Amino acid sequence: MKTVETLESNVRSYSRCFPAVFSRARGSIMFTEGGRKVIDFLSGAGALNYGHNNQEIKAAISEYLESDGVVHGLDMATPAKVEFMETFCSVILRERNLSYRFQFTGPTGANAVEAALKLSRKITGRHNVISFTNGYHGQSLGAIAASGNRFYRKASSIPLTGTTFMPYDGYLGSAADYLRKVLMDESSGIDLPAAILVETVQGEGGINVAGKEWLQSIQALAKEVGAIFIVDDIQMGCGRTGEFFSFEFAALSPDIVVMSKSLSGYGLPLSMLLIKEALDAWEPGEHTGTFRGNNLALVSGKAALTLYWRNQTFSHQVQRMGALMRRRLDAIAHQHGNKFAVRGRGMVCGFDCKTTEIAEATSRKAFAKGLIIERCGPTDQVVKFLPALTIDQDTLGQGLDIFEESLTETLNSARGS
Amino acid sequence: MKTVETLESNVRSYSRCFPAVFSRARGSIMFTEGGRKVIDFLSGAGALNYGHNNQEIKAAISEYLESDGVVHGLDMATPAKVEFMETFCSVILRERNLSYRFQFTGPTGANAVEAALKLSRKITGRHNVISFTNGYHGQSLGAIAASGNRFYRKASSIPLTGTTFMPYDGYLGSAADYLRKVLMDESSGIDLPAAILVETVQGEGGINVAGKEWLQSIQALAKEVGAIFIVDDIQMGCGRTGEFFSFEFAALSPDIVVMSKSLSGYGLPLSMLLIKEALDAWEPGEHTGTFRGNNLALVSGKAALTLYWRNQTFSHQVQRMGALMRRRLDAIAHQHGNKFAVRGRGMVCGFDCKTTEIAEATSRKAFAKGLIIERCGPTDQVVKFLPALTIDQDTLGQGLDIFEESLTETLNSARGS
Amino acid sequence: MKTVETLESNVRSYSRCFPAVFSRARGSIMFTEGGRKVIDFLSGAGALNYGHNNQEIKAAISEYLESDGVVHGLDMATPAKVEFMETFCSVILRERNLSYRFQFTGPTGANAVEAALKLSRKITGRHNVISFTNGYHGQSLGAIAASGNRFYRKASSIPLTGTTFMPYDGYLGSAADYLRKVLMDESSGIDLPAAILVETVQGEGGINVAGKEWLQSIQALAKEVGAIFIVDDIQMGCGRTGEFFSFEFAALSPDIVVMSKSLSGYGLPLSMLLIKEALDAWEPGEHTGTFRGNNLALVSGKAALTLYWRNQTFSHQVQRMGALMRRRLDAIAHQHGNKFAVRGRGMVCGFDCKTTEIAEATSRKAFAKGLIIERCGPTDQVVKFLPALTIDQDTLGQGLDIFEESLTETLNSARGS
Amino acid sequence: MKTVETLESNVRSYSRCFPAVFSRARGSIMFTEGGRKVIDFLSGAGALNYGHNNQEIKAAISEYLESDGVVHGLDMATPAKVEFMETFCSVILRERNLSYRFQFTGPTGANAVEAALKLSRKITGRHNVISFTNGYHGQSLGAIAASGNRFYRKASSIPLTGTTFMPYDGYLGSAADYLRKVLMDESSGIDLPAAILVETVQGEGGINVAGKEWLQSIQALAKEVGAIFIVDDIQMGCGRTGEFFSFEFAALSPDIVVMSKSLSGYGLPLSMLLIKEALDAWEPGEHTGTFRGNNLALVSGKAALTLYWRNQTFSHQVQRMGALMRRRLDAIAHQHGNKFAVRGRGMVCGFDCKTTEIAEATSRKAFAKGLIIERCGPTDQVVKFLPALTIDQDTLGQGLDIFEESLTETLNSARGS
Repeated sequence: MKTVETLESNVRSYSRCFPAVFSRARGSIMFTEGGRKVIDFLSGAGALNYGHNNQEIKAAISEYLESDGVVHGLDMATPAKVEFMETFCSVILRERNLSYRFQFTGPTGANAVEAALKLSRKITGRHNVISFTNGYHGQSLGAIAASGNRFYRKASSIPLTGTTFMPYDGYLGSAADYLRKVLMDESSGIDLPAAILVETVQGEGGINVAGKEWLQSIQALAKEVGAIFIVDDIQMGCGRTGEFFSFEFAALSPDIVVMSKSLSGYGLPLSMLLIKEALDAWEPGEHTGTFRGNNLALVSGKAALTLYWRNQTFSHQVQRMGALMRRRLDAIAHQHGNKFAVRGRGMVCGFDCKTTEIAEATSRKAFAKGLIIERCGPTDQVVKFLPALTIDQDTLGQGLDIFEESLTETLNSARGS
Repeated sequence: MKTVETLESNVRSYSRCFPAVFSRARGSIMFTEGGRKVIDFLSGAGALNYGHNNQEIKAAISEYLESDGVVHGLDMATPAKVEFMETFCSVILRERNLSYRFQFTGPTGANAVEAALKLSRKITGRHNVISFTNGYHGQSLGAIAASGNRFYRKASSIPLTGTTFMPYDGYLGSAADYLRKVLMDESSGIDLPAAILVETVQGEGGINVAGKEWLQSIQALAKEVGAIFIVDDIQMGCGRTGEFFSFEFAALSPDIVVMSKSLSGYGLPLSMLLIKEALDAWEPGEHTGTFRGNNLALVSGKAALTLYWRNQTFSHQVQRMGALMRRRLDAIAHQHGNKFAVRGRGMVCGFDCKTTEIAEATSRKAFAKGLIIERCGPTDQVVKFLPALTIDQDTLGQGLDIFEESLTETLNSARGS
Repeated sequence: MKTVETLESNVRSYSRCFPAVFSRARGSIMFTEGGRKVIDFLSGAGALNYGHNNQEIKAAISEYLESDGVVHGLDMATPAKVEFMETFCSVILRERNLSYRFQFTGPTGANAVEAALKLSRKITGRHNVISFTNGYHGQSLGAIAASGNRFYRKASSIPLTGTTFMPYDGYLGSAADYLRKVLMDESSGIDLPAAILVETVQGEGGINVAGKEWLQSIQALAKEVGAIFIVDDIQMGCGRTGEFFSFEFAALSPDIVVMSKSLSGYGLPLSMLLIKEALDAWEPGEHTGTFRGNNLALVSGKAALTLYWRNQTFSHQVQRMGALMRRRLDAIAHQHGNKFAVRGRGMVCGFDCKTTEIAEATSRKAFAKGLIIERCGPTDQVVKFLPALTIDQDTLGQGLDIFEESLTETLNSARGS
Repeated sequence: MKTVETLESNVRSYSRCFPAVFSRARGSIMFTEGGRKVIDFLSGAGALNYGHNNQEIKAAISEYLESDGVVHGLDMATPAKVEFMETFCSVILRERNLSYRFQFTGPTGANAVEAALKLSRKITGRHNVISFTNGYHGQSLGAIAASGNRFYRKASSIPLTGTTFMPYDGYLGSAADYLRKVLMDESSGIDLPAAILVETVQGEGGINVAGKEWLQSIQALAKEVGAIFIVDDIQMGCGRTGEFFSFEFAALSPDIVVMSKSLSGYGLPLSMLLIKEALDAWEPGEHTGTFRGNNLALVSGKAALTLYWRNQTFSHQVQRMGALMRRRLDAIAHQHGNKFAVRGRGMVCGFDCKTTEIAEATSRKAFAKGLIIERCGPTDQVVKFLPALTIDQDTLGQGLDIFEESLTETLNSARGS
């Protein structure tokens, strides 16, 4: 840790909340240098839906490396890319009656969001983008402009432009009436948007869950005003909510889907856009990036698709485990007189502690007891449950036990002080 | 190729110039599915300075994978990261009497540039950034604003702000007088800058080479006006110009160095900033990113440092091969009456064909003959030589032969038509 | 008219709706070249609250001109300016227990708004400004950014920045809860504002009337979040709503008041800010303008203050006439089954025809019958009653008769077609 | 003065340099309350080319007021406007073989500049505007973005966008080569401009004089790249340089001419654009303003045109007096060993004192001796001679005597200290 504290920039963050050197990991367990075993409910902020170092996926990577397959080839054609696209089409898209073109962007979610906004502005000739209160889409200038968090926004140290924030589902009632009103009003001050950019469940924003009707009305509204409808499925896609895409439950058909995080299945950097063919208005090379189409990640991504998504078994299992987690968290909240709120869908839950202090202390205690668990929300007041989708019931239960103990201790010591 | 043409977005580019499926690669050679062997003078746009699938580096990666070392851990501390930083310090920094802190950003060069600009604006409270004609720094909104290329700029489809372009060395004489004048003039319209952002050799911009005096005067000017001096060493760092950092020849001491591309040594996505300790003004977590500090890339990066930079042997070899390449290209230019220009430093050369047509045809013919070679410059009129630093003399010679033949044929057929 | 049609730019507007050459005017009557007499319910868009060519004010102007008083002196001190400020202090401010410093800006409302926003941003170091749906503040780049109308916004042909639009009173219920929520929410995406800029009655936006409670809560919220509270009283000040300032009824104490239009009392260009002394953070000369402090307008402005505001007689008369106008318009609306809405306060009323067509035809017919009356609102669907405050009861009645006839004919012909 | 110091905002400026209350003025003489007589070499910053309270122009104003002509009528047609346009056409445009449409904007130069930029961006669909080092175009957000002065720029407290500054004639040699190069270069970072906005002599910027060839090359370049060519003749038009338009000597034919300041001839607020018919792309009402087409100013403006511009007598007289002033200033500079520079054209001269201190002390001393004279330039180091065009030779001589004495005293006391 000394090296990290001395040599790494002040900007480092997780090595502060979870102050240990992690040498190995497997599934839902991380091991510290000292040999301590810790349950991981953070899962690489959603990048490890299939757990750490998933052995079957690893096999595919190792084989590819062994064969001297092209690891870096910019966006040249490789079997790795071809097979990834074909597998994605057959396993994911065709099954869902969806049809998209693939754009592999620079391997960060932010870069994919930037590409989606660029394309939307290009197509529509408009500059404004509607994003939502508590939304989060990344850290580069175009992506952070669409993100609500003031701490991140201020860090840019210049005014952020090109976006208008509208109330997310539940922020101002559950209808999208206000958004409709300002878009229809010729004098609202809200410029007609190039795109409406939405997460179906807001992760960083505090595990806020949008309902089917609201999402559908947003999609319809986008169509009505000639805006591109973009679902940012970076954190909530790849099975997190119980289905591969987080928007399946609402039968949405986004114009553009933004994917990253667990897309590679192994924590390797990979990002992509799914674009409806009619909207694929790019000129060749109009958005590029050295590490776009990271081949090793395409190999592991294909392996993950093949392993988990060829039928509905995995999806059902995720839903079952998610329900279990939810019931347990509801029970914990109930035990404390329901002063806390539980929100979520599928395998993502937020336990809203209402105060930063409770959430912070609970998470800190949990780590001491062997659980990595993060916080989110406007003031980091929500404890965020993001276990691997592949977690077994025992480990899940142990993690939840630790959380409950940590919460109770926190509340007791608060009461005591 | 069919799959690529059907399923991948129009935005794809290299699969158009080099229309083949590349299944394997080793060192400076790529193999197509059909078994064709092609020499690679593109090297992943500078991301493969140590060649494709460098076997010694691969060993380190495989071992790490095998051991279930943490592959994805956000910015938690891992032995991989600790060892990378320690190795970088001992092998690179200490030897050069440099001292920096490490920030691992999202694994694209653009993301690192965005972080550097954010930090500069934060420190200075200023918004403007000086960048240079024909400069290139990436594709996200903050990075593209600092990049000169109109094709990329237009693609953003909104006005790009926060930057002022000044003449690069040679664009308007070889002194930085004009920049000095506008910065000293209280009524020039040029707002005092947060940062001056410069490449020592402009890659995308056409292999434009800045001289020692010019670079030093730019650095001095930055200091004088209280601006952060940033060297973007994404493409020109990691040995490309003959020394590890491209600015060593000018004895610069940048406030921030931006690194990516060949940093991981194996084409794996990795980006970082080197920041002078006194300027490390970040709050914890103020710039984040899911794939920051990609551990597999840190492992390969450490291996590359250990393999090539513990002494000056490799550096000398790169300089020797670079000189060879340069002599040959100068001879080719001379043969054609010096109507073409050759520019470069170390192992990067630009052969300025003066017209897009000649450069385009030459590159196309070269690929048909077994050489991958890219173009750059304002109208893609410059053929860009970016072979692996590890290339052997024979392969280099064969590649140059192909280039010469392709150029001659192009000129002949032009004359003939 | 020929000359106007040939020589004046397409941008001309009122000479289209009211196609006549107006050679003379007096009080509420304008005379065309052909000798036609027309009642004026437009009053220079609120710049002629004391009627055309008010004879008593004219006397003051003529005397000043005769004496060769300084007409143009930039912002040098003149007796005209000194007397205007002293009169404004004694007649207006002291009576209302208000205390402000005077800034005379360039003589357009927009320029005064620009100065107010500049000062607010300077004081707070923030960039964002909250303005409201359907608000209108002028046509220069800074002012139009704070204005809701899309037709005007689009005319700028570049993205407008630095403002966030929030629902005006009645737009989303009558409480300011949503504004409070987004300002208090650390993740709403709404940056903390430098200023909140509000009209107490929106003129151009459709005669939307804010209530006392809403205005007070907006003022309190501004204070709470450290934003400058600015009332734009350009159109609604100078007695239009029945009291000198439009915010007196709500007992507000704005940090900055923006005044123009009827301030000079004679239609001469004049604009100013009233600034609380503690907020007068300007450096000398930091906002300038050749025609600031137009002396002739200061002379007429002082005359108007002396004539009308030394006691409450005028104010009571305006309220009485306003009530009369309102009752009559309510009756007209009632007669048509209340399908139309009447809104207003004091001597400004909007008759919301619900459709652009009805409003347009009614206004056109009215002009043919001898009444100048304008429209406003998002789609110009509201007929706007803005008679001179000095209008006599007969003329007011005649104008209202013409409006009623014109409306009835419009509705009949619509029904007939 | 007490009232001014207490009640007026800190922003006031001229009342600081010229601390007196000015009660009357006539021609080139201003009278203070105490009866002091002061010669005016500032002329309302160029708004009083025909002197203070020009008696013949006053007669026209008085007559119009007397007749109750429409003083304020928004942009309704009035005989005053019709006659102004007709007179301008016959007296000014036709004589010079020019043909333009008239747009009367809000009565500040800044508002006219904003309208010109809006229209240029609308026509071209581009956002960038080229303006020049040391240029000055006004204080509203759009205009200040095109102005070089950092003091004013900083006052906006937000980044200024949409403009690129290029070297003015003489700033970087006397050719426009650099501007041409960056506009032709597809990778310069300079976006193709909507407009090129230029003053033929920079007033606020330090009396920098552009040559015929440079201006012509700028105009040609604008045409070549499809940009609107705008001459800002706010301060240098209306005879200031010896001809009515300042660009006549170079035989330019600007797409748009921006006029204000002395246009009304009497110091009354008036601004307008001259627009080539083919570029008159405005929609009706797309740029408006309450005080546009200020009728009293149109009346005085017409009187001034009739009085001074029906033949070349006045123009020749201005040139003669200008030559006289220039010879005298050259002689003064020569006397001091030419360490000072004299610049100018026609009746505008700058005496560059090289240091702020000398210029400031000289101007202060001059006021004590009975001369109002302003400073300009990046650090206010240039004494600016802007006498009325109607000044008689004696008064001009007296003013120059005072300047010379003041300068000599300043230099002596500097030497003495």
